[in-house]
Amino acid sequence: MAENCRFAFAVHVLSALALHPEAMMTSDELAHSVNTNPVVIRRLLCELSAASLVETQRGPHGGARLARPAAEISLAQIYRGAVGEIQAFGEHPNEPAQCCPIGRGIKRALETVAERARLAVEREYEAISLADILREVQTTP
Amino acid sequence: MAENCRFAFAVHVLSALALHPEAMMTSDELAHSVNTNPVVIRRLLCELSAASLVETQRGPHGGARLARPAAEISLAQIYRGAVGEIQAFGEHPNEPAQCCPIGRGIKRALETVAERARLAVEREYEAISLADILREVQTTP
Repeated sequence: MAENCRFAFAVHVLSALALHPEAMMTSDELAHSVNTNPVVIRRLLCELSAASLVETQRGPHGGARLARPAAEISLAQIYRGAVGEIQAFGEHPNEPAQCCPIGRGIKRALETVAERARLAVEREYEAISLADILREVQTTP
Repeated sequence: MAENCRFAFAVHVLSALALHPEAMMTSDELAHSVNTNPVVIRRLLCELSAASLVETQRGPHGGARLARPAAEISLAQIYRGAVGEIQAFGEHPNEPAQCCPIGRGIKRALETVAERARLAVEREYEAISLADILREVQTTP
């Protein structure tokens, strides 16, 4: 599954769980809301559980629920749990000529730019909580 | 060419031009430094010229040079010139269930997140000039 998908699905699933924090939701119910296969959801819940974002319970009354309040879960934590480290942008794709004064230094300069962009996105994701998302979702007519 | 490549190549080419702002550099010289095909560089110069970042001149003594000082060229301008609008991240890939209260609103909430991430990256790119890049390149041992 592409990185974008994993992040969007994770935010979707966690928002659904945040709507009824006390209830257990099954992977079938979550898959219906996301409009995907329950197997995809079960794999995702496994990763979110490893990241301590959800608690899962097996058996006939099993399912998943949030491991802590939505206000204490940031998008950055969700991204790391469902996808991994927030990726960098704009890296140099090939090996520039080392004999040229620009070629020698450009890779490092572009890495610095990519790291600044990555940190900027991470800061945004840190600042948005699952509770913020749920509020925005619920104001949609 | 992938978006990452186009951006990296553009920053590389413009840094090389910024090193000798008065001289014209040929696409062959630039291609050697980037370690790519001169055709790729000529196409890129064409786009950077359309974005008013370089001036090009045809003929035996032709080539390209910066259209304005490196301190007045931001990475955001380079990105827009070489790639286009800075892209969004984390959009929902499929159509969530509209009957579910989360499914109805999640797409819009994720679009808001993606737009915040996009603006954060754009702000970083606005704040970094080609002169900053050249300085960093030149401090590489």
